[in-house]
Amino acid sequence: MKFNPITPEALEALSAIVGQEHVLLPAAADDMLRYTHDETEDLRYEPEVVLKPANAAEISRIMQYCNENYIPVTPRGAGTGLSGGALAIHKGVILSTERLNSIIEIDEHNLQATVEPGVITQVFQEAVIARGLYYPPDPSSRGSCFLGGNLSESSGGPRAVKYGVTKDYVLNVEVVLPTGEITWTGANVLKNATGYNLTQLMVGSEGTLGIITKIVFKLIPYPPQNLVMLVPFRSEEEACAAVSRIFMAGIVPSALEFMEREAIVWATRYLGQDLSLPEDIAAHLLIELDGNDMDLLFKDAERVYEVLETFDVGDILVADTEKQKNDLWLLRRNVAHAVKGNSIYKEEDTVVPRAALPKLLRGVKEIGAKYNFKSVCYGHAGDGNLHINIVKGDMSDDDWNNKLPEGIKEIFKLCVSLGGTISGEHGIGLVQRQYINIALNEVQLRLMRGIKELFDPRGILNPGKIF
Amino acid sequence: MKFNPITPEALEALSAIVGQEHVLLPAAADDMLRYTHDETEDLRYEPEVVLKPANAAEISRIMQYCNENYIPVTPRGAGTGLSGGALAIHKGVILSTERLNSIIEIDEHNLQATVEPGVITQVFQEAVIARGLYYPPDPSSRGSCFLGGNLSESSGGPRAVKYGVTKDYVLNVEVVLPTGEITWTGANVLKNATGYNLTQLMVGSEGTLGIITKIVFKLIPYPPQNLVMLVPFRSEEEACAAVSRIFMAGIVPSALEFMEREAIVWATRYLGQDLSLPEDIAAHLLIELDGNDMDLLFKDAERVYEVLETFDVGDILVADTEKQKNDLWLLRRNVAHAVKGNSIYKEEDTVVPRAALPKLLRGVKEIGAKYNFKSVCYGHAGDGNLHINIVKGDMSDDDWNNKLPEGIKEIFKLCVSLGGTISGEHGIGLVQRQYINIALNEVQLRLMRGIKELFDPRGILNPGKIF
Repeated sequence: MKFNPITPEALEALSAIVGQEHVLLPAAADDMLRYTHDETEDLRYEPEVVLKPANAAEISRIMQYCNENYIPVTPRGAGTGLSGGALAIHKGVILSTERLNSIIEIDEHNLQATVEPGVITQVFQEAVIARGLYYPPDPSSRGSCFLGGNLSESSGGPRAVKYGVTKDYVLNVEVVLPTGEITWTGANVLKNATGYNLTQLMVGSEGTLGIITKIVFKLIPYPPQNLVMLVPFRSEEEACAAVSRIFMAGIVPSALEFMEREAIVWATRYLGQDLSLPEDIAAHLLIELDGNDMDLLFKDAERVYEVLETFDVGDILVADTEKQKNDLWLLRRNVAHAVKGNSIYKEEDTVVPRAALPKLLRGVKEIGAKYNFKSVCYGHAGDGNLHINIVKGDMSDDDWNNKLPEGIKEIFKLCVSLGGTISGEHGIGLVQRQYINIALNEVQLRLMRGIKELFDPRGILNPGKIF
Repeated sequence: MKFNPITPEALEALSAIVGQEHVLLPAAADDMLRYTHDETEDLRYEPEVVLKPANAAEISRIMQYCNENYIPVTPRGAGTGLSGGALAIHKGVILSTERLNSIIEIDEHNLQATVEPGVITQVFQEAVIARGLYYPPDPSSRGSCFLGGNLSESSGGPRAVKYGVTKDYVLNVEVVLPTGEITWTGANVLKNATGYNLTQLMVGSEGTLGIITKIVFKLIPYPPQNLVMLVPFRSEEEACAAVSRIFMAGIVPSALEFMEREAIVWATRYLGQDLSLPEDIAAHLLIELDGNDMDLLFKDAERVYEVLETFDVGDILVADTEKQKNDLWLLRRNVAHAVKGNSIYKEEDTVVPRAALPKLLRGVKEIGAKYNFKSVCYGHAGDGNLHINIVKGDMSDDDWNNKLPEGIKEIFKLCVSLGGTISGEHGIGLVQRQYINIALNEVQLRLMRGIKELFDPRGILNPGKIF
């Protein structure tokens, strides 16, 4: 790809679209800093300019200009991504959606909401809960991430196991195409058999096909009751095996999270919590049940206990108070932060059919032993989605850079051989791009590249990602 | 498009692929008959040949041959479609999937199943229920339609309101592309952020992008209990209005079906049932609640009653026995048959946000008065999906052929103006093609046509459908 640098003339044209006060240049060192990275490892790329448009019309004019002038545009939400999707690796423009941050409508009659992409996920969740409604997807970063970014990566989170991921709540999207055209992708309906599903093509496309400027979400009634328990296991594989047994007993928990011993140890240390953990505990499952009726949840919990009794578990901790529940969730949500605060690391977002989790976990440890890396594993066990934090620790730079990728390849090949794939909710972005042909064959890649070319003939939108 | 006819040489080559006994020619008049139509109006198109391949490998060879020789191929499931998708309007090959009819695996550990496309929906449902699992999508034709066809049209059915439509259960699909290449579209996982969503591009593509040869479905635990009630209303609009009020009360019924008076009158007459219907009843809602626990269902039913009490309803009939439940469902499922048995008709598959249903219904009646047509309306009110059966009755052929399409255009424009679209679950196929630009703008159409060309450069697969 051949792109043009941003000339003074281009800068003037682009500034005129968004207004001078919404333009940021590298000279503004401190303010610029956060646009040079997302949450992916320690990667840094400085764009030539950051633009903060106010609406789809301005974005359309930016895209038209950049398309005509072969200037690369990298769309950016809150910058919480874990695959480098928001990094301006070809320089050019960072297009930030931070000013498109309105909740346009919460429609209680239709259980729908229309929002702009720059709304923070948790802000939206709280706004709909205040109306007795529920938007379940809740990535760990929900306190800071944007809904637009959630769509771009088809983000999940703990509640996906019962409620599905972001894509399952998207009815319709307004997008600006790389050519500057503005269009909705579908209609505001629960069922749609009118042409190809452009909506789901846009969801999960990692900002490579268009820039999302409005989203119509489906909402559901809010389930007000829940029950949270932390279950210690003496074997990691038994913890994983228990997961599919719970579903086989007819229970669909609203969360079913796996944490190996190290994950919980690092997180408690990071949070300054005191969780006296018996020596023989190898892993935990964090299980949440939710619904409208507490009696029913107790019944379901009994069925869960019956399943757990067939495994070698320690003392089950049932959270009695909201504070206890929050503490348990805080623990789970801070595992990645704890690892990140402790060492250089890489996070792999593996996903397999859930019953294959024990095999995946065993495989990861064996591959780690072979390549001499340590890993902290945790994640959404109910979905078969295991996050593998590979810790650099005292590995040499040379091994980290040259030997480790071979180990990662082996992990990904194992995922695929188990019927899974290489990313469940973080996307391919920049950092998994080198592994894409482990997951996708030549036919799939040809079709995907063809779609990319159809939407973005000059390849200016988020170049260098996915493929 | 310029296609070639099937020469004796081509027939020989194609017959050699599937075996002579799996080839049907027009000469076999009686056997051929059912391949000349689906369930769409009274349309008839005779193909040059019907091929019944056994597997993806044979389909691949057929597609390669037809692609090289510009021979059109129309894929066909059970032929229960309502938009003419399986009609060989350009002659050529009808490719029937009827021999790909194995349930390959029901995986109780992962709550997944792998099937071939020619499995009858109800056969599959019963096979998974026997294992305590559930595959909810249940189009009215579930006793005869194929799962492959359900995918092609993204079929819904009454349970969609709680459980979603076919697309929500498809994890992965094996397809043969028009070029003959065979590929899976995704992975066997609940979450997938690895490249563009080819799976959901294939679902609902009406057999125009590839031929589905295997499907991996997600399953859920089977909810063994249910409760069915028939609620008569004295006003059609009140019946529609009650629908969104039930959701606002926090209840998600497993079915919420609307039938206007005529629908139920025609269906009871058709079935020879005796339902003494007071003169002042204008419409009915058929409401089903389901779950694991009967006590909870009674609680939910009480909340539904509380909502219904705020409307002018007649005596609510609660089905006490399995037979009563089946009778009520039989009634609902036979409305279309009853209308079809009574008159030439057209069925429109309108869909709007559910709170807009009263407006849609009123609009349809007003447009009917203006264009002088009678309609019988019923459908999946919980999804805002209203089936409008337009009855020819004593309308002149000239008005039916020339004036009615203007009325249908008005109905579709109304749907779109209400945030809806022109098909919820039947697809565009042949018969709604003339209306597609009411629902889709030029940008959407350009993208969709581009996708079609990417998958099917020579346009041989199901030509003349959708666009």
